[in-house]
Parts: sequence; structure tokens; C-alpha cells
Amino acid sequence: MPYSSEQAQILTQALPYIQRYSGKTIVIKYGGHAMVDEELKRSVMRDIVLLRCVGMNPILVHGGGPEITEVMKKIGKEPKFVNGLRFTDLETMEIVEMVLSGKTNKSLVSLINQQGGRAVGLSGKDANLIVAEKAESDGDDLGFVGRVKQINPQILEILAREEYIPVISSVAIGPNGESFNMNADDVASALSVAVKAVKLIMMTDVKGIYDDRNDESTLYSLLKIEEVGNMMRSGKIDKGMIPKVKACTDAIIESHKAGRHIETHIINGSEPHALLMEIFTDTGIGTMIEAG
Amino acid sequence: MPYSSEQAQILTQALPYIQRYSGKTIVIKYGGHAMVDEELKRSVMRDIVLLRCVGMNPILVHGGGPEITEVMKKIGKEPKFVNGLRFTDLETMEIVEMVLSGKTNKSLVSLINQQGGRAVGLSGKDANLIVAEKAESDGDDLGFVGRVKQINPQILEILAREEYIPVISSVAIGPNGESFNMNADDVASALSVAVKAVKLIMMTDVKGIYDDRNDESTLYSLLKIEEVGNMMRSGKIDKGMIPKVKACTDAIIESHKAGRHIETHIINGSEPHALLMEIFTDTGIGTMIEAG
Amino acid sequence: MPYSSEQAQILTQALPYIQRYSGKTIVIKYGGHAMVDEELKRSVMRDIVLLRCVGMNPILVHGGGPEITEVMKKIGKEPKFVNGLRFTDLETMEIVEMVLSGKTNKSLVSLINQQGGRAVGLSGKDANLIVAEKAESDGDDLGFVGRVKQINPQILEILAREEYIPVISSVAIGPNGESFNMNADDVASALSVAVKAVKLIMMTDVKGIYDDRNDESTLYSLLKIEEVGNMMRSGKIDKGMIPKVKACTDAIIESHKAGRHIETHIINGSEPHALLMEIFTDTGIGTMIEAG
Amino acid sequence: MPYSSEQAQILTQALPYIQRYSGKTIVIKYGGHAMVDEELKRSVMRDIVLLRCVGMNPILVHGGGPEITEVMKKIGKEPKFVNGLRFTDLETMEIVEMVLSGKTNKSLVSLINQQGGRAVGLSGKDANLIVAEKAESDGDDLGFVGRVKQINPQILEILAREEYIPVISSVAIGPNGESFNMNADDVASALSVAVKAVKLIMMTDVKGIYDDRNDESTLYSLLKIEEVGNMMRSGKIDKGMIPKVKACTDAIIESHKAGRHIETHIINGSEPHALLMEIFTDTGIGTMIEAG
Amino acid sequence: MPYSSEQAQILTQALPYIQRYSGKTIVIKYGGHAMVDEELKRSVMRDIVLLRCVGMNPILVHGGGPEITEVMKKIGKEPKFVNGLRFTDLETMEIVEMVLSGKTNKSLVSLINQQGGRAVGLSGKDANLIVAEKAESDGDDLGFVGRVKQINPQILEILAREEYIPVISSVAIGPNGESFNMNADDVASALSVAVKAVKLIMMTDVKGIYDDRNDESTLYSLLKIEEVGNMMRSGKIDKGMIPKVKACTDAIIESHKAGRHIETHIINGSEPHALLMEIFTDTGIGTMIEAG
Amino acid sequence: MPYSSEQAQILTQALPYIQRYSGKTIVIKYGGHAMVDEELKRSVMRDIVLLRCVGMNPILVHGGGPEITEVMKKIGKEPKFVNGLRFTDLETMEIVEMVLSGKTNKSLVSLINQQGGRAVGLSGKDANLIVAEKAESDGDDLGFVGRVKQINPQILEILAREEYIPVISSVAIGPNGESFNMNADDVASALSVAVKAVKLIMMTDVKGIYDDRNDESTLYSLLKIEEVGNMMRSGKIDKGMIPKVKACTDAIIESHKAGRHIETHIINGSEPHALLMEIFTDTGIGTMIEAG
Repeated sequence: MPYSSEQAQILTQALPYIQRYSGKTIVIKYGGHAMVDEELKRSVMRDIVLLRCVGMNPILVHGGGPEITEVMKKIGKEPKFVNGLRFTDLETMEIVEMVLSGKTNKSLVSLINQQGGRAVGLSGKDANLIVAEKAESDGDDLGFVGRVKQINPQILEILAREEYIPVISSVAIGPNGESFNMNADDVASALSVAVKAVKLIMMTDVKGIYDDRNDESTLYSLLKIEEVGNMMRSGKIDKGMIPKVKACTDAIIESHKAGRHIETHIINGSEPHALLMEIFTDTGIGTMIEAG
Repeated sequence: MPYSSEQAQILTQALPYIQRYSGKTIVIKYGGHAMVDEELKRSVMRDIVLLRCVGMNPILVHGGGPEITEVMKKIGKEPKFVNGLRFTDLETMEIVEMVLSGKTNKSLVSLINQQGGRAVGLSGKDANLIVAEKAESDGDDLGFVGRVKQINPQILEILAREEYIPVISSVAIGPNGESFNMNADDVASALSVAVKAVKLIMMTDVKGIYDDRNDESTLYSLLKIEEVGNMMRSGKIDKGMIPKVKACTDAIIESHKAGRHIETHIINGSEPHALLMEIFTDTGIGTMIEAG
Repeated sequence: MPYSSEQAQILTQALPYIQRYSGKTIVIKYGGHAMVDEELKRSVMRDIVLLRCVGMNPILVHGGGPEITEVMKKIGKEPKFVNGLRFTDLETMEIVEMVLSGKTNKSLVSLINQQGGRAVGLSGKDANLIVAEKAESDGDDLGFVGRVKQINPQILEILAREEYIPVISSVAIGPNGESFNMNADDVASALSVAVKAVKLIMMTDVKGIYDDRNDESTLYSLLKIEEVGNMMRSGKIDKGMIPKVKACTDAIIESHKAGRHIETHIINGSEPHALLMEIFTDTGIGTMIEAG
Repeated sequence: MPYSSEQAQILTQALPYIQRYSGKTIVIKYGGHAMVDEELKRSVMRDIVLLRCVGMNPILVHGGGPEITEVMKKIGKEPKFVNGLRFTDLETMEIVEMVLSGKTNKSLVSLINQQGGRAVGLSGKDANLIVAEKAESDGDDLGFVGRVKQINPQILEILAREEYIPVISSVAIGPNGESFNMNADDVASALSVAVKAVKLIMMTDVKGIYDDRNDESTLYSLLKIEEVGNMMRSGKIDKGMIPKVKACTDAIIESHKAGRHIETHIINGSEPHALLMEIFTDTGIGTMIEAG
Repeated sequence: MPYSSEQAQILTQALPYIQRYSGKTIVIKYGGHAMVDEELKRSVMRDIVLLRCVGMNPILVHGGGPEITEVMKKIGKEPKFVNGLRFTDLETMEIVEMVLSGKTNKSLVSLINQQGGRAVGLSGKDANLIVAEKAESDGDDLGFVGRVKQINPQILEILAREEYIPVISSVAIGPNGESFNMNADDVASALSVAVKAVKLIMMTDVKGIYDDRNDESTLYSLLKIEEVGNMMRSGKIDKGMIPKVKACTDAIIESHKAGRHIETHIINGSEPHALLMEIFTDTGIGTMIEAG
Repeated sequence: MPYSSEQAQILTQALPYIQRYSGKTIVIKYGGHAMVDEELKRSVMRDIVLLRCVGMNPILVHGGGPEITEVMKKIGKEPKFVNGLRFTDLETMEIVEMVLSGKTNKSLVSLINQQGGRAVGLSGKDANLIVAEKAESDGDDLGFVGRVKQINPQILEILAREEYIPVISSVAIGPNGESFNMNADDVASALSVAVKAVKLIMMTDVKGIYDDRNDESTLYSLLKIEEVGNMMRSGKIDKGMIPKVKACTDAIIESHKAGRHIETHIINGSEPHALLMEIFTDTGIGTMIEAG
């Protein structure tokens, strides 16, 4: 399809953003809930290929909720909950790992490669990328649920230098080589600090943070880290949104300790080209949380 | 444990072999049937870490037969056969991929990393490593069973340069991004040619090729490629052994076309340290097949 | 200005073209006649910055006709013609060089740098880039008018590696260090061969080559080198267009001798974003001339 | 011409100086007043080629006073003065830039290249090398006269690494991309600090600084920065010499702030091989100013 | 000789030590008294080749006592002593240098190279590796006996990067280019600090440091630097052992000043494979001295 | 000593020769007979440091005749001759090696380093630089006299890249690690071919080749390789000169086989600065032998 002069004009508007983020690392969390439609997944992967093509270094972290549930159902495995949190026994952990690292991960890799990108899929076990320790919930055992203990980002630096796109499943390695099920938001947050990312983008299925959940017009474009803290304490933030917000604020605080600044975003990944709309405009979309 | 002087002496006997293979690539096929015992798997991975540590570049290709069967049973999926060959429908393919790339692959990666190595697990989809086309069997459809069409070895060269150990599951990417189930022997053979390996070692659960299958003392140490051809034509070679022998002779022929020489071996991977006994001695163990 | 989803979509349509030309060299001749409007010049330079930003290696060659005439008028220097060709005496040559290398060149460099690019202006004298010998016209003396004898492209390779945009004035160095006035079309053609460009784009002030000069609808999109030869012999091609066409066919022939393929284009540089419309679409704009 | 043994002996006397300055950067200001004779210019450029050849990294900064005056006369442009300083209106600025960057610069480049060197001519606009802001004189407007605001020396480092000789005209780029006329002494001084030069040599047309201007025998070989300060305050230093002395002391002070030491020199560039006599002897020629 | 499975097992026990010291520098002092037997020398050199082969960076420093005495006897030169220390006159120095740098050094180089290593022999004069000043003994002249003044380790870093094994004779260069006879223990100590070694191993002809010299069972495996100091002050350490102990403690102290840790060892080099037994076990052999 | 303008002029005359040989390798044979005077040796080494300083890559090969004789006398060892050639028994070989590699070599290294150069002394044993086989003379045994079998020039390439000056003694390593006494002319010749030298300079104690040995005015400046062949066959060339001439013609022939051109020279090393006079003039001194 030939470009008209007007369309070419649109291309050139991306120039300052390409210049700003060229050579910079952007960590993108792509949640399972934003993956339902195959066409959308393909479009998101194409956007990521574009980022890599114009010189940025995108790193993709994914979860896989619905696909895990589907396979567990097939196997006839009943989910078990502790304090409202999913308990991960050994058999569940094996299923989680197979689905995340063997199915979701490879299908994203394949979508990127089909569109001319060069992706490499990794789990946290590869090259000891994500080392975990056992997590707890108010003293209750959650089984093979882990918490990030250490990130070994060398393999990501090598892949970046060679212009590959890393696609990372949220499974980590424990002290005895066992697998741990990880919250993908936390993994993305810890990785964004370790790789010195300038942006952490959480792609979820809501538009961002609202002042009034029932009124779309109250979406916040920008929140300072203190405002977000106040909103969390006053219960204004939706329960499902809390881990995402926490991942953002953690990344900001840890980056700050290391003397760096990171921009964090919560956007609606189910909107076409949300990623590009966030990166290639000044105002962005969704809610940006930044240091105060 | 302190070395005695005699034990230290044994170390120095490895010297000429370390010198000979330093900086050289060795492709090792580790079959599912040789993986049953966890302790043995750990020991084989430790041997591979040692090879990498003394300067060789081992690349591990694995299958996962028994683990696939086990998961299929859990899901209640009945195996289907065509001309005695397993038919891979889409649902089976998904299970195969999850088990190979998500379970077997990551467990080998984890065993290497626990013993101080640095492994990265890949499937043929990562970086488009193994591109496949649909295979056929005498005109009958086998579903998602593929045949190697192209190897893109760049990612392996990068990992080798950085001293990682690649661990590769035998799943390939098809022309439309779909997954293909591959024979791991064929994959190891094609990879050994593409990465210019000096050795291809097939670790299976028999000692090698016998003149008389019922008499262990008739094991061949060395067979020329023509002898092996004659034995195949005269039906002397066991049916289960044929794909391994074929993988070896293919690697020899294709390497020869490219002006290189490769040594190929069939050894018993269930024997402790079989890999080291093969590489660190002149006579080796098992059966070596080489150009005539 | 925020992108709408539709506008972001337009960005992604550029992806296959970015992938195709990433790391490739494109030589762009920007003629004096296409430079009259300052706003247009700025827009063309912005397009070139974009090409560099998405990973291509653009090299800009410029003439400066009208600006030369203007300065000559100020100094009161009368132009002199031989066989209808401008005769370049020593004083004229000094003016030509001052204008081209000191004014036009630096103003293009400045426009690129203001828009975030990193340009370095060169004349053919710098690093002995363009070595010339005296040209003749049917045995008549043309003064300091030269013909390309040798290109020394090393400085361009260094600048490309460091991601600078070279801007080159069409002045060359003669055997005794004297300056020669060069036809910028010829210079662009010779450079495109020496730097192994994949594209040579002549930006002029007409849309391309017409079958009937009086009928815009007869513009050729694509001409084979033989067709173009026939058209030149039959006088169908406009006199002003002949040097551009000749530059294109020379580049094709010389690249072919060196075992390479080059695409050459004549486009209307006074049309906004003509360059992007040429590079980022399959059909392109203007007339493309290619090997038969 | 064959060397005699005595002449070869002279070569070896240069050895300690070659060793001392090998790999080091030397900034040389070559003033317009020292350029009148073409033969001398050629000889100075040859000396610079020799410095590069024996491993030093010379950077040449030039003015072009007399040539500018000559072209302005031709165009019939009257010079205008403010507080005794030349006022640079837009038309004058265009002429200055054309002469400096298009004529003087390229003629020096050509002389170097003819003698086997590899020069690249740059103005302060190229690669944003010299960024300027508007200068003032006691609150009076001087037009397009600038003062150094920032040096971007990356392009010089690249050219040095590749063993080119940069030749720099004293034109800078302003905040809106406009050209600024710069004092070449100041430019040389600022560049010498930015490129971490070990020597700054001002080639002018007098021998150095005298105690008594009318008595050649009172030339100072060495002056401490404080002595020079006192001499300036007491009016002992010639008005024309003041900008050169100021350039030297600025370079000393700014280098000192950055923890480095620089030797600065004022020498008579119209004396044959003055540059070599300065660099290849312990005593040097002219006046050296150094930190106290 | 084929490995048995048990022997291969021994190989793998070396793995953690190979991993620990891979890429690390180990300075080995090989004393003349441990060199008497040609077969042993060959075996020690083979051990060193093995260290290099598995990725460590061994540097060998040697003395040559008995060989020097032998050549001096042949020439009929009488040894002379001052305060019980050998006085080195000019003629003696010439003999010492010829034997150490021309005979002992080259024979060790040859033994390494014959066994597949790549050794380069150096004296302290080469590349100004060891610069010395005149040593004294309580105010008495010892002739050409020197004390380390400066180490220039660049040549060792280059050889390490290219995987050569440096073999260094204990001759140094004095302020006027004269040769100095050096204590090889001191040289090894100073080198180990300059090259940032992690281990300094003194190979001598006793097992280490005893509590009771007459009782082998009182050998210390590990001594803290303070304990060793106390033992020296109380005269518990054998006179011949004192320079070795001093070399170890100096290396520990100087490394500590530079913020590094070094392990130092005194072992019996006349025991077969003592070097490997030290490096490839946790307990090691001989006596280790380390920071308190 | 300050340069006068005339002396500086002499420096610049060296420029074209510095440019011609910059980055090129020059092998210099420095014979024992040209070494008698310490002051001259120092001066020759200074000339070599100068060559390295201006960017050439000199490699020095030395013999050591008189020093060997002197040490043998001291030890009371009687020289033995076979067919007029010195027979090298084991004891003699040990003396030869000690003197060449331990005394002569290190004294040249020291002289270079004292004058600001960076020399590394090597024998043919180091890094297996010169591999020899036993030489014979008309079937008679000459003991440990060798003939060049193979050159391994990698260590010289590394040292050149790091700007060291290699100083090589003419001792080689035999098939069993034994030392061989080599003719230094042959060694220089073989090395010049292996390192792709552009010049081989034999520094001896006569001016070159004469037409009439008794008439200095009959010195040949230039001889073609065929002329030299004729002169040798007709006995016109002095016996002592024959190995030098042979070394030159061998280098020419072997370089020619490898598609390269080498200039070879016989000059009088006892003349001050003979080396510089040869390299820094068009006519050179002594006799040049070149391909026909």
C-alpha cells in the first residue's frame, strides 16, 4: 500500500521518540488476560518488532493465566487456594512451567519471528536469569510460589547487543534447582531495574488508574509515587490493580537507589497499538507513575 | 576429597584430549530412554559442564519420549499410529511441545546450572533455529511431524562465544509459524553439520552396533560408512538403531560435502561417564562410524 | 500530538521496508533546483534523519546552482559558455567552491543537526574523497570542470559505522591539488558504486520520465535500462533529464560489473516527503530504472 | 637526496620528542596573518603531516582574516565597527562562512592531502562540533559574533583514531542553527581543553612576548601564568597579542580544573619549520606560558 | 590408555576447582633445588600445561642455583661471600644471566612446548618487566644483587590474553641498563601482586612449615599471617625457609593494600603432581599462609 | 640541543620514507662482527627504536660469533671443525645457547629499552618460533647444527600489534625439544618470508658487493637476482659474503612464490646510522638485491 504524503508525515512525527529511546531498554509485561485474541497478540508482537527495528531494546515478560487454567482443567487438576491465593503444589508447578515456558512463551516467540523479528524465549531458569526463594503469605505455605531473590541479566545484555528480542516466562529457579511460580508483574519490575530500563510498561486489560472506577473520564494520565501511595492506603485502587501498581513503584524506588530514573506505565494492552501510542507520543496513554 | 598423586596423574592423562578438542564443537544427542534415572541425568550434565570448562563447546540436543507418554496418559489422550509411526495431531503437538520445551528442556538446563555450568534452553523456534517442512511416510499423512529444512545457527555461535551451553529441544518451526515434532537424532545430525562440529555423539541405551545382537563381545569399535551401509541393507542393524545410524552417516556425508571431517559415535548413555570415556581416550567406547 | 490507533497502524506499515533497508546504504542526490524553499529543505533533511534513525545509511550529495548564480551576480562576474556549457575559469571555480562547500553544504548540515541528526559536511577534497581529472567537451576547454577519476570511500565507511550522515558537495580534487567543478549527478552515481549502495535516488523538480512530456498520466513507474537507452537514442528524453538518466544507468552498469544490484530512482524532490514515499512503499513514486 | 651520516644523526635527535608526544593531541592555531605566502603554507602543512606520521595527533584550527577582507572588497561590502570591533551582519556572516569553510579550510585540506596526509575539513557546524551563543561587547550588539558555549569533540576522537588530521574553521552553530563568527584563538583554546591536548600552539606573525617590544633580545622563553597576568594588567602586552595570551591562559586554567596539564606556546608561524623547532627541542622557540 | 568409569569419575572431581580458578592468574615459583631430576621437571611442566589448558593463567618464575654453580665451576670462578651472602661481581653476574636466561629458562620453555603448551621465556629485562635497584646487606656491598623497584606487567597481560605461558628468569634491569641478580622468591612475590594473582605457590624441596622440624606429622596445613610472624620472631622457622615465608607474607600484605586477597602456599615440588594436588583439592598439600 | 631551521628541514625529508614503510615489517640481521664496539651497538639500537617510533615494525635477528668464542675460551673448550665448518657438540651447543639467548640477546634488549624502546628477547624455542631439523654438510655430521624447517610467526604478530620490538637469537628447537645452532642469515631470511616483510637488511662489516674486491669504487648499488646468480657461479663473490647473498636471494624467491615482493640489502653495519641511510633515502647505501 503506497503511502500518501499525509501518511509519510505521520512517520516523521515518530522521529523525536525514536531518537529519545534509541539504544534504550524497555521492559514490557504482557499479561495473560490481554492475550485472548490471536489477532491482537500478533499485532502486539508486530509493534514490539517495530520497536526493535528502530533501535530500541524491548524485553518482553509474560504470564499465562487463562492457558494454565485450561490445561489444568484438561488434566483434571483442581485448583487449591490459601488465603484467597492459589496454592502451587508440585504437580501444579509442573503444569504451570510446561504451559508458560513450553506453550505461551514459544507461541509469542513464533509470532515475533514470523513478522521478521528475531526472538529468543527464556525462562528464569535459563542462564540462572531469575533466582527465587520461597514466598509466604502471612505465614501460610503457598507451595512453589517464589519471590525474586536475584536477577542475572548478562544473557539479556548479550541478546540485546546482538539485536534479539528476549521473551521471558515468569518461572524462576530455586536454591535446589526446583521451579518456582512467579508473579509476572514482580518479575518485570525486578528485571527492569537489573537491565537499567528507562521504561516499564504493564500491558493489562484496563485503561489505567481511575479516580472513580465507574467513570472512565476520571482516568489519571500521570500520578506521582506519593499520590499512588496515598490512594493505595485509602483503598481507592482496585484489588486486581494493586500488584501492577506495586511493581511500578518498586521499580521506581529501586532504580532511584541505583541513581537512575524509570518511567512506569499501566496501559490497556487489548487496545490496538496501545504500545506504540504510549511510546511515540508525549502525552502517552493509560496512567504513568513516576518519581515524585 | 584430596587427590592422591595417582589420581592427579589420571588428570594429566586427559591433557592431549583437552588440547585436541579445545575450542571445538561437539554435538551430543541425549535420548529420552537414557534419562530415566535422575542421578544419571545429573551425572551426564556434570560431564557436559566439565567439557565446557576445559574449553570445548558442547551442544546438547534432547528428546523426551517417556515424559511425553506420561503427560498424554494424564490428559487421557490416546496415541494414534500410521504405518507404525505415531501420528501427531494438533492437540498431541501441543503436549509434545509443552513437555519437550517446557519440562524436559528446563530440567536439563537446571541440572547444568546447579553444577556451575551456564545453560540456555532453546527450542527450534527460538531465533528460528530449526526450520521444518511437513514430513511424509510413503504418502501417508503424519500430522505435525516435520523434516529439517534449514538450520540458522547464529544464536548457537553467539552462545558458544560467551561460553554458554545450549540445550535444544527437538521442536521446529514450520512455514506458517506452526510447531513440528522432530526426530531428535535427525535434528542433532543437521545441527552438527551447521555448526561445523568435529564430533556427533548419540547417547542411547545400548552399547553400540553388534555383529551378533545376542553376543556383547561382537560390539564394533569402528565401522566405516560403507560397512554400515552394507549392514543396513542386509538387515543386520536393529530397527531401533537405524535412525541413529542414519543420523551419523548423514552428518558424515554432509560434512564431507562442505569439506570437513566429523567423527560420529553411538554410545550407551546409561553407563556412568560414558561421555568422558568416549572423549578422553584414544580408543573410546561404543561404536564409532567414520568416513571410508 | 498523540497518535490515534489508526496513525500508529501507519507506523507499522513501514516495518517491512525498515527491515529491508536496515544497515544498507542509500545515496541521495539533492539538486539545487529542489532547494528553493527553506521549509521544504528542512522537511527533506528531516526525512533523511528518519532514515538514519531507523538504521539505514543515507549519504547526501548536493549541487547548488541557484545559490552560485546569486553570489556570482553580487560579485559582478559574468558567466561564460562554451558549446552551451558553462566555462569555469579560476575565479568562477573559487566562487563555486565557496558557495557549495562553505554555504550550501553547511546549511544542509545545520538543518540535519537541528533536527537531531548528526551530519558531517565534506567536499571531494576532504580525505581525497573525490579525485578528478580535467573534463573536455568535444575537444573544447571548459576550464576547471572535472570528471570523476577515483573515489576513496574510507571516510564514508567510518562515518557510517559511527552513525553520522555525510553531506557531500560536488567539488573534487585534481592531480595538482586544484579544485574541480563536478556534475553532482555524476558524483552521486560514482559514489553509489564505490560505497556499494542498494539505492541511488535523484531528487529533482520533475516527477520522473514521461512517455509524453505534456501528459502527466504517461509517467513511467519502471523502466528497464534497455528501454531507457532506446528512449535516449530516439530523443524522447528531455535534455535536462539526460544527465540524471545517465547517472542512473552508469550506476547500474558499474554495480553490475562489481557483481551487485542497485535500484535507481528519479523523483520529484519538491513534493513533500517524496523520499519516504519512495522508500517506504512497494510501488514507490517517480520513475525507477533498473537492470534489464 | 641521500642522507649523510650527519643528517641521519639529526633524525635520531628527534627520538625523545617523538616518544614524549606519541599518541598525544596537539592543537595548533594557524592564523590568517601567517598564511600570506603559499610556499610557507605548504611547508607548515608538511610539518603537520610529519607530526601525524610519527604518531602524534595534530588538530589544526584556522582563521582567515585577509582572505575574508579580499572577498568582501570584491562584493563591495563595507566593514562596520562597534567599539573598534568588527560588526558581523547577516550578509557579512555569509561571506565569512563561505571564505573560511569553503575556501581557506579546503585549501589547507588540499595542501595536507597533496603531501601524503589525510585531512578532513570541518566547521564548527559539522557534528555540532562548536556550539556558540551570542557574544556582546560592553552591552553593544556585535551581530553574528559568538562565544563558545559547548564543544562536542566525539568526531575529533573518531578522526584521531583513524589517523586523519582535522582542519577546523572558526565558524560555530547557534541555538537556532544560525552561523556565528568566532575568534579562532578562543576556539583553539576551548578545543584544546575538550580534546585533552597536551600542547596548544598559537602560530602568529611575531616571535612571542617581549619585555620591551622594541628589543628582540628581550623575548621571554617561558612565562608563568601569574607573570603573564601581571604583564597584562600593567599594559605591557601588545593589544594584538592579548587574545592569544588570553587563549593560552584560559586553556591552562580550564585544563587544570579538569586535573590535567597543558603547555601553551606563542610562536612565529612565518618562520620556516617553527612548529618542528618548537616540538622537537627542549628549549623550543617563541614564548611558552605554563601553570605557575 | 582408556579411562575406566572410576577414572573418569576422578576427572569430574576437578570440576569445582577448574570453575573456581578459570581465568585467574596463579604465580608459581619453581626453585632450582626442585629441578634436579629431568623427569620431574617434565612432569611439573606438564602439570602447568594442564592448568593453562583448563583455563587458568599460570606464570612460572624460576631460579637456577645448582646449574649456576656447575657453570661457575667449569669456568673456574670462585664464589665469594659477604656476611654469608654470595657476592655477585660483574663476571659472576654475566654467568648467572647466561645460565638463568639462556639455559634454565629455555629448557623449561622447551619442556612446556614439547608437551603441547605455548611458553615464552622472559627475563626481567624483556619489556622492562622487572626493574631493580642495588640491594645492600647491613651496609655491605653485595655487588650486582638487586631488589625489586618496579614491575611492568603489561607484557604478561598480553601473553595471558593470547594464552601463552610466561616463564620468567630472576634477572632484573638496573637504572643504567645493567643486570641484577635477584632472589627468585622475591620476584615471584612482587609479580604475584602486580598481576593480581589469586595464588602464589612456592615449589621447594620440603613439605612446608613444621612445628617441630624433626617430626613430619607436625606439618601445618594452614597458618595465619600473624602466627607466621610469631614463629619467625621466635626462631621456629628454618633459615632456608625464611625467604619463602617472607615472600608469601609480603604478597599477602601488598595484595591487601590493593584491596585484594591472595592465597600463598609452600609445597614440596619434588613430589609428583604436587601442583595439581594443591590446586585441585580443598585441603591442598603443604602449608598455606593467608591473611589473618 | 635546539634544532635550527635547516636541521628541521632535514626531518621533513624523511617524510616520504616514513609514509612508505609505516605499518610495514622490516627484518634486520645484525651480525656479531658488527657488534664489537659498545657505542656503535647502542647507536644501532637507537636507530631501530626510531624506526618503531615512526610506525614501522622492525624485527631484529642477531648472531654472536665473537662472544661465543670468548666464553668457549674461558671454559677451555677447543673448537672442532668438519670440512672447515664448526662442529657443534652438546657442550658447545649449551655454551652457544647460553651466550646467544642469555647474554647477547639480553644486552641488545637492554640497549633498546634504555633508549625508550620496548624490546622482548626471544630465541627460536620461545613459542616454537623457529623449528629446525638436523643439517648436514656433504654427508658429514655437524652435530647440533640445524636448518629451518618451520617458522611459527604468531608471537611476532602479537608483539608487533602491541608495538614491541622482537629481538631474536638464532637458536632453534629440534624435533625432540633439543637446541640447534642456526646460521643467523638463514634465520633472518626465513623469518622475513614468514612475517611478510617488505625489507630484509643484512648488517655486516663490509659495504656490500663489489665488482672488484680491491676497488671500493666498484660497489654495486643494485643487483638483479640473476646477476647475483651469475656472479656466484663465476666465483666473483667473496666466500664470507655467500651466506648473506644466499639469504637475500632465498627471501626474494620464497616471497615471490607467496605473491609478494621483498627488497633485500647488504649494508655495512659498522658505519654510523647505516640503517637510517638505507631506509630514509631513495638511493640507499650498500648493495640492494631484488627480483629480476
